[in-house]
Amino acid sequence: LPERGLGPNGDLIGRPGSRTRLHTPALVLDLDAFEANLDRMAGKAREAGRALRPHAKSHKSIEIARRQIGAGARGVTCATLAEAETLAGGGIGGVLLSSPVVQPGMIARLARLNTSAEGLMVVVDHPAPAAALDRAAAAAGKPLEVLIDVDVGAGRTGVASLEDALALAGAIRQLASLRLAGIQAYYGQLQHIAAYAERAAAAAEQKRRISAAVDALRDAGIRPGIVSGSGTGTHHMDLADGPFSELQVGSYLFTDQDYRRIELEPGGGSPFRPSLFVAATVISVNQPGCTIVDAGLKALATDSGVPVPARGTAKGATYGFMGDEHGAIRAEPGTGLPPLGDVIELLTPHCDPTVNLHDHYHVVRGNELVAIWPVDARGH
Amino acid sequence: LPERGLGPNGDLIGRPGSRTRLHTPALVLDLDAFEANLDRMAGKAREAGRALRPHAKSHKSIEIARRQIGAGARGVTCATLAEAETLAGGGIGGVLLSSPVVQPGMIARLARLNTSAEGLMVVVDHPAPAAALDRAAAAAGKPLEVLIDVDVGAGRTGVASLEDALALAGAIRQLASLRLAGIQAYYGQLQHIAAYAERAAAAAEQKRRISAAVDALRDAGIRPGIVSGSGTGTHHMDLADGPFSELQVGSYLFTDQDYRRIELEPGGGSPFRPSLFVAATVISVNQPGCTIVDAGLKALATDSGVPVPARGTAKGATYGFMGDEHGAIRAEPGTGLPPLGDVIELLTPHCDPTVNLHDHYHVVRGNELVAIWPVDARGH
Repeated sequence: LPERGLGPNGDLIGRPGSRTRLHTPALVLDLDAFEANLDRMAGKAREAGRALRPHAKSHKSIEIARRQIGAGARGVTCATLAEAETLAGGGIGGVLLSSPVVQPGMIARLARLNTSAEGLMVVVDHPAPAAALDRAAAAAGKPLEVLIDVDVGAGRTGVASLEDALALAGAIRQLASLRLAGIQAYYGQLQHIAAYAERAAAAAEQKRRISAAVDALRDAGIRPGIVSGSGTGTHHMDLADGPFSELQVGSYLFTDQDYRRIELEPGGGSPFRPSLFVAATVISVNQPGCTIVDAGLKALATDSGVPVPARGTAKGATYGFMGDEHGAIRAEPGTGLPPLGDVIELLTPHCDPTVNLHDHYHVVRGNELVAIWPVDARGH
Repeated sequence: LPERGLGPNGDLIGRPGSRTRLHTPALVLDLDAFEANLDRMAGKAREAGRALRPHAKSHKSIEIARRQIGAGARGVTCATLAEAETLAGGGIGGVLLSSPVVQPGMIARLARLNTSAEGLMVVVDHPAPAAALDRAAAAAGKPLEVLIDVDVGAGRTGVASLEDALALAGAIRQLASLRLAGIQAYYGQLQHIAAYAERAAAAAEQKRRISAAVDALRDAGIRPGIVSGSGTGTHHMDLADGPFSELQVGSYLFTDQDYRRIELEPGGGSPFRPSLFVAATVISVNQPGCTIVDAGLKALATDSGVPVPARGTAKGATYGFMGDEHGAIRAEPGTGLPPLGDVIELLTPHCDPTVNLHDHYHVVRGNELVAIWPVDARGH
């Protein structure tokens, strides 16, 4: 594949006013908001005496992972083997791979990665791949740390019952090249419940189940040092009480449109600010009542509604998808539309899959492009 | 950005049975179906005496563009400047950029590209960027060929009326470094009308408008040598009659789930076969009634419904999105689910944005991986 370098915006770094002259479509990261979000979550975790292992599937960036660890995180969580390879290859320690690896070829890759990556862990939810992981770790010459993945209502991966958790723990203890380090219990299905009290009640029920599993493992002589889970939606309540030793928060860095709808703290406030936008240029103005911009469904994820105009447009303006490469900006009567050639910004509807569409973060401070960071694990 | 090379599947090229051992998620291109589609459309165009300038936004691949030109296409169409740079940089001549370029920085890039790219053309739909393109082409020292983009009901880019088309043509003729080569009239809004007769009636109405515009330009002393438009949905009727000198067909190569719903030829048949799939591994089997695979909304576009299990699953199996990295395969009662570790394949719901999520085509012949082609303009 061709060298992607810094892309066409590389020459704009450090130029005053460059934020509004970006070649588009371009992913924009507002550094002031990003740093505030990074520090706020780190501070909340420190005060609560719990660790963070932020989910890197949100950002896929070595630079951002470094900053999270610099702010106190004990590592990062990755969703895929390729993500883990990319971040560990960039020098990031303490990578937890949060999804099972079961195919022989991919297990061999993971065992190879383990020989060079410091603090690597992976989840398992079935005895067969546990045995295969053990053989591969033995062949590679380095034991592998694993967490038992426990389903807590997401209906996706994880053992389905306490009995299965205990049986799998027993099986893992018989495997000489696996080290059982704890459990993962991620309730993704609760993260987007809008009302704080409703989300807290649902989380409390699952946390009782997780605590019971921890107790049962202790009773069986297994001490699950790590209990990994939670997310941005439930971070506040999971820092306050419950079994988690570490939180896999991700979206707090960006605070997309999805998370703006949610009461993140009691009383409806959010400790975080939107930091992630997509810049687009007005490229056509021949339609009555709208202007056309050059960002469509290849620049903005479509799984969670529409982006929201956030900069360069009148208050109340809306965005509508117009195919792969285009969108329509509409304004309330009398408020005016941005003119031909203007660069506007859209608040992303769902941060993770939108980041995955781009090669670079265009990092801005105020109105100036100050850096370009690669989305290292884009597409991985 | 790190070198992406051939990815983890590079070692599987040429190994018998490798199709079912791919590291996943992986984009799979069935070469037999692909070649049949390529030849079928080329043959239909040849018989009809019309040219093809296939839309490369579907595939974003230098190798595929070469094969299209090898089969007789006069070039390719690109949706973005970055796509045009990538394909022209790969030696592809006759690139038409089908969306207006209006920003000063991006216009300068286009004028630079024009000095090295053979047969480059770009659309314009407004006098202001036409004047800016003229200045940039003059500064770069090579005239630029342009087509007037005419809106034919898509409500996106393009001049909105015949009067505007004539005025813009007159303006372009005054610009010493622009060459007016014809018009573009793309009715994307008609491509997915399912019933052939209904689509043909709607297209006929627009084709009368396009022919009237061509006649009016001729009466004004302008000979629009190129009339570019059409798509896979309307290709059969647009080869049969109407004003198009060249067709911008794209999806015919892949025939995604969207296009399988559509009567592409009178009587309901399709001359094309599905060739594009996403391979996924069964990574968890702890849920009742479903298995979990490792391809979610970062491997499969979500804008057009759900993917359809096509290989490795029982007849009637369904796929449901389960977040960024996961999906659930459900089967009809009594038909059985694929076991842990199996690699299955999903027919893509919408080919263009799905290709854009991947770095590589895994090109298979029967059950063997025979090549890996980069998605060169992925994310561009």
